[in-house]
This record gives sequence, structure tokens and C-alpha cells, in this order.
Amino acid sequence: MPVNLKRPDPQYLKPVNGVSLGVAQAEIGKPGRKDLLVVKLEDGSRVAAVFTQNRFCAAPVVVARQHLTMLDPDASIKALLVNTGCANAGTGKEGMSAARQSCAQLAALLGCSSAQVLPFSTGVIMEPLPVEKIGAGLPDCLANLREDNWLAAAEAIMTTDTLPKAASRRVSIGGQTVTVTGIAKGAGMIHPNMATMLAFVATDAPLSLALARAAVAQAANHSFNCITVDGDTSTNDAFVLISTGRASAPEIRDAGSAEYQELMQGVTAVAAELAQSIIRDGEGATKFITIRIEGGRRDEECRRIAYAIAHSPLVKTAFFASDPNLGRILAAVGKAGISDLAVDKIDLYLDDVLVVKNGGRHPGYRESDGQRVMKQPEISIRVTLNRGSATATVWTCDLSHDYVTINAEYRT
Amino acid sequence: MPVNLKRPDPQYLKPVNGVSLGVAQAEIGKPGRKDLLVVKLEDGSRVAAVFTQNRFCAAPVVVARQHLTMLDPDASIKALLVNTGCANAGTGKEGMSAARQSCAQLAALLGCSSAQVLPFSTGVIMEPLPVEKIGAGLPDCLANLREDNWLAAAEAIMTTDTLPKAASRRVSIGGQTVTVTGIAKGAGMIHPNMATMLAFVATDAPLSLALARAAVAQAANHSFNCITVDGDTSTNDAFVLISTGRASAPEIRDAGSAEYQELMQGVTAVAAELAQSIIRDGEGATKFITIRIEGGRRDEECRRIAYAIAHSPLVKTAFFASDPNLGRILAAVGKAGISDLAVDKIDLYLDDVLVVKNGGRHPGYRESDGQRVMKQPEISIRVTLNRGSATATVWTCDLSHDYVTINAEYRT
Repeated sequence: MPVNLKRPDPQYLKPVNGVSLGVAQAEIGKPGRKDLLVVKLEDGSRVAAVFTQNRFCAAPVVVARQHLTMLDPDASIKALLVNTGCANAGTGKEGMSAARQSCAQLAALLGCSSAQVLPFSTGVIMEPLPVEKIGAGLPDCLANLREDNWLAAAEAIMTTDTLPKAASRRVSIGGQTVTVTGIAKGAGMIHPNMATMLAFVATDAPLSLALARAAVAQAANHSFNCITVDGDTSTNDAFVLISTGRASAPEIRDAGSAEYQELMQGVTAVAAELAQSIIRDGEGATKFITIRIEGGRRDEECRRIAYAIAHSPLVKTAFFASDPNLGRILAAVGKAGISDLAVDKIDLYLDDVLVVKNGGRHPGYRESDGQRVMKQPEISIRVTLNRGSATATVWTCDLSHDYVTINAEYRT
Repeated sequence: MPVNLKRPDPQYLKPVNGVSLGVAQAEIGKPGRKDLLVVKLEDGSRVAAVFTQNRFCAAPVVVARQHLTMLDPDASIKALLVNTGCANAGTGKEGMSAARQSCAQLAALLGCSSAQVLPFSTGVIMEPLPVEKIGAGLPDCLANLREDNWLAAAEAIMTTDTLPKAASRRVSIGGQTVTVTGIAKGAGMIHPNMATMLAFVATDAPLSLALARAAVAQAANHSFNCITVDGDTSTNDAFVLISTGRASAPEIRDAGSAEYQELMQGVTAVAAELAQSIIRDGEGATKFITIRIEGGRRDEECRRIAYAIAHSPLVKTAFFASDPNLGRILAAVGKAGISDLAVDKIDLYLDDVLVVKNGGRHPGYRESDGQRVMKQPEISIRVTLNRGSATATVWTCDLSHDYVTINAEYRT
């Protein structure tokens, strides 16, 4: 059961002028479900993306990166092509060829070049991509292209996600209302043999290509780069930001402008909501945990400590058990590899309960207070290092029996 | 159930001339069990140790480090004082004082200085060390000091270990037979709220202090630094090497000498057997897994890749399920952070079965061969990077339901 996550209301997902979405049942993975998505973009859209850092990245990641860099400056990305059921990862040269053929098939139907199509795949690793099935499904996708199809699109990219994930915001930019809407699916390697966190966010606000690239990296750092289920990085992760420029607002070119800041609030809010929904639907998750590190010298040391806590199986099992097990959190802080960390300056809070003061158990702390916090479905861990002003936030979930069951039994 | 691990035969554990061991029931942790150990050393013994790198290290670690550095060159360590039931970690200044008082109590009974006693604690974190109970138990320990007490000592330092861990070797050094015998207990943070991997290895071979220090670091790198259960580093880890020098062999002073190499074979063999026994008795372990990385540019990159595999929850759950899930191992290699790794040069073997060739599935690989290997209790993963001659080996276990059960339910 996901933690405080519901099926999005279709009314909540506002269409983005210039983006239409069509889905089809192409029988790529499990039969009887929508598994193919085309996101069609109007001319002049700017597209930027960040991808997995895994060296074993999938063929569609390589091809999408190439298409984004090789694109003629006068041309623009016309479509995203997304399939579930097969990750096209660990598939060698044949996989590269299959990813390119898929793009070519859609390009032929849209009357554009292959380089104007970006491919994305999610599903089982090391299986060949069924190019012909994808080709057969494309006319269906194009036949039902609609601007209000975001929820259907979110459903078509699911793998073992239990719920579709979508988010939307309206933002006012210099008096003009613009829209930011996005969808995502299951985080990284939380899905056994299922590669991929995929996220696609679009806005009608006009962004220069340079700013779109800055925006996708900045939003990722405050959303998808802040989540972890089990520390495993997938081969297919991608986060794409689309700016159609169809809103009646002048192009944003200056990262220091008020307009850019206003838009980024909306983009970051949508990305963060999607990232959090991935954690809420994490495999076996029973708790949603926010880890906040404050008072560090540098953001990087705060992130390392936050991830050391988030990746500790002992911390995660303690949260599953609602056990306010102080030693495990402190030991995780201590093993983060910050060699000059003064542990006698560290304070630890569970929600608003002060648990550790100056590196030792706070005299006023009562186990019953810790237990009360730990029993909630949403918990925050806050560690203050008291040596600077840097901060970091990471969202994670607990480690439950269901995680082991799901991951041990997936292929059996 | 531990993996291929048995209770050591007392006959197999050879006494080390100059080392006597005494145990007592001091009621420090759970009642009704031996929980206090004194290891008494004859004059002139050389003692060297390596400790946890965790910044939240326990009071006994701080005190033992100080005693080893502050010791008068003419004096020698007279005793190790080890308790289970309480880790004396996260206990602040009171913890430091308690560790020192424990040493002082034993020093008074032995007629030596406090600095000649090294303290070691294992057990629950953030509870005060019961100094009086330790003091009350010490006379019992001294009353049953015996050279053939290694097995009783191994039992007295257990926490949630299911079996005592001890190993012994005889080595011939320049025609003289010397003995290496050691004991250990549960690895790192595999034990919930139980801090500590402790290991004590003694030899009667005469080593200079400088060489003893080199030897303990070298042996650790080929044993305790090669194991991981869950990646959590404890606050109390310590590995101690004792050289009593009582064997009739001349002192070994040269790291390049044949005598040193011969002795190190014995010391490393004992340390590696102890380290492996810790993994075999890992929480919830059903498989013993050897991860071997070969053909790297540097040892460090091989170690990083080995640990990326060993720490991946997805790899570990796949081994629990006996599922030869190739993608998970490749994804772990890819996320190890080796940015210039050429993934199309990588080969992967499960035991002797070639699974991946040049970064892709080997055409001759059959799933049934992988499954046959995975069903064994002992499995080796071998990854060849084909870019150099560096290697690394890491031993680990799988991630099972019992791991979650043990760690979630320990305090409830």
C-alpha cells in the first residue's frame, strides 16, 4: 500500500498548450495493458533532459542524448516515444539499432527526422526491444493524441507502480498564467529487473534552450536527485523538461529574472511532487521519511550524511518497526565519510522531538516521544551539524518484508 | 542457520604461549551467560590494532587508541578487557570515564598501570557501562585464566552470533613452528543495536612493534576489510594482533624477510577464516558469496565495484531467491562511480559459468546454468574489467526475510 498517495484527479492535471499525448496497447510486456506512449510537441518546443549516471546505461538513453546534441539549431524535438515492458538495456549494438528504428518509425508517421524523436524505455533488462510491435502500435497512439490525456499517459508508463503519478501547477509569470504538468514512474532500481525512473514535465512558458537545460538540472537537484529507495541507480533514468512556449508571455532568457524564479517554483513543485510520489509508492514502503541535514559546511557533506542515513538498512528496518533506534542513525552519520566531523556538536530531532543533543542522548528525551513520532506514516529526521549554513534534504522510505518479497520473487 | 559454519573443535584451537584467557558471568547484558573476558599477556608482548573509521566511535575505542599511543616504550600491554551486553557507545564523557575506570580496576588487580589495559565493549548502544558489575566479575576472570581457554573466550564475546568464531594455524618460520590463534564476533552493524565486530589474534612468533602494526593493517586488508553484510560500519569495530614472542625464533624485524612472509600467511589465514565465519553467521544469511573483481587499473576501483555489488539490495535479494538476475549485477557495476569504465569490455562469471561477455549476454549462456550455480550455498561472482591487472575480493551474504525480521524486531 502506498504511503498517502492517491490516484490523481484528471481535473487536477491541467493541459499544457502545445503538448498532446496518445497511448496504445502494443503487447510489449504484459498483455492487456496500455504500454506505448507518444508525446507530440508543437514546432518550436525546447527540450532538455538529465539522464542516469550509470555506466551501463540503456540504448534509448544513449540515443536520446545523441538526438538532443545532434539536433539542428533550427529544428526542434517533435515527439517523445515511451514504451514500458522492455528496458532495452544491456542489449548491445542490436539494442542501439532497435532504439533508432523505433524513432525512425515514428518520424516517418510525423514527417520529421529521426533525430527529432527521443526514445525512452522501461521494463525488463537484457531482453530485445520488439520494434515491430512498437511500429504496429504507433498509429493507435497518434489516433488518440489529446492535450488532456496526461492521466492515461501516466498509466501507460507504469511498470510495477501501484498508482499512476502525475502533478500540475499554475504559476503567474509577470501577470501571465502558465501551466506546468508532468508525469513519472517508479524510481530507479526499486523495481526488480525493471529499470527506470522516467519523468516528463512540460510547460507552455517560453524558455530559451539554455535556460531549459539549466532548469531541468536545477529542478532535478531539488526533486529526483533527492530520493532513494535502495541506493540502486537504474540504467534508464531520465527526466525531461519541455517548454512549448505557447503561453502569451515573452521568452525567459535570464536565469536572474523574476520570471525565471517564478516559473522554477512551479517546475520544482511539480518535480518534487512526482519524486515524492515515487517514494510513497516505493516497493514495500510503509513510511515516508524526510531526512534534513542542516548547519553543514558544504551542501555536499550534508547530502552525503543524508544518503548515509537513507541507505542504511538498519535505519530503514528500524523505521519499518517504528523503533526510535538512536544508535543506528548516529552510526550512519558517523560512517558518512566526513573525516573532520565533530560528533559532539550534533543534534538530532525526530519531527519536533529533540533526541540527541551535542552528540549524546538529550536528558529530556523520552523513548515514548520517539515512539509516538515513529508510528506515523510520515516522519522527518533532522540532523544539525552546527558548523555552517549548508543544508540538504533527501526523501526515502523504510525497508519492509514486502521489499524482500517483491525483489526476491519477481522472476520466480 | 549459518552457512557452512560449525562450532570450532577445542582441539583445533592451539594455545599461544604467553596468552591466557579467563571468562566470567558479570550480568552486564542478558542474565545467565558469560559476558566478560580478560586476555592476559606475558611481559614483553607487542600489541597493534586497527579500529572502526566511524566518527561516532565508542568510548573504549578512544581509550584503547590512547593507551596504545601513550604507552611507555619500555612497558607493554598486559591485558585486554572485553565485555559484551553494552557497547559503551554514544555515551559521552561518562562513557569515557567508565571505560577508564574499567581499565583501572583490572590494572589494580594485575599490578600494572591503566594504560597497560585495552578495553573493548560490544552490545547495546547508548546505555551506560555498568562499571561495578565489571569490577565484580574481574576476580572470576583471573581465577580461571588458562592458555587453552580460546573457545570459552569466543563464547564470552558473542552478542547475537549463533556460533562462537575461532581459528588457528601452525606455521613454520625458518624451521621453527609458531602458532597463530584468534577469535572474533559478529560483523559490524549486522547486529541491530549491537555494535561491533571484535577480533583478537595472537601469535607466539616474535614481531617488532613496527612490524606488528604493519601486520595488523595488512591482515585486515585481506580479511575484515573484505567483508560486508549491509554496509553499516559499527561504532566499536576493532581487530587486535598480539605477538608474545615466546616462540624460540629470532625477532622478525624486516617486512621483506621470508620469516615475515611465512608468518603473515598464518596470520592472514586466521584473520580471513574469522572474517568469513562472521559472514557465514550474518543475520539471515542463507548464501556465502565471494565477489572477485579482476583486470582493473587500480585495486581501489576493483574494491569500489566489488562493494557496489555487495551492497546492492537488489543483488542480495536475487541471491536469496537463487535468481541469476544479470541486470542487477551489471547495474551495480555501472553505478560504482568509475566514470571511465568501458562497459563493453566487461565479462561476468557465476562460478565457472560465463554469463556476460563484452558487456552483453554471452550467446552460450543458458539460464539453467546460472540457476544451478545460484542454488548452491556458496557462490562466486567474478567480474573481469579487462583493462589492467588489479584485483579485489569481497565476501558477503544475501538479504533475506530473516534479516528484516531480526533487525525490525530486535527491540520490540
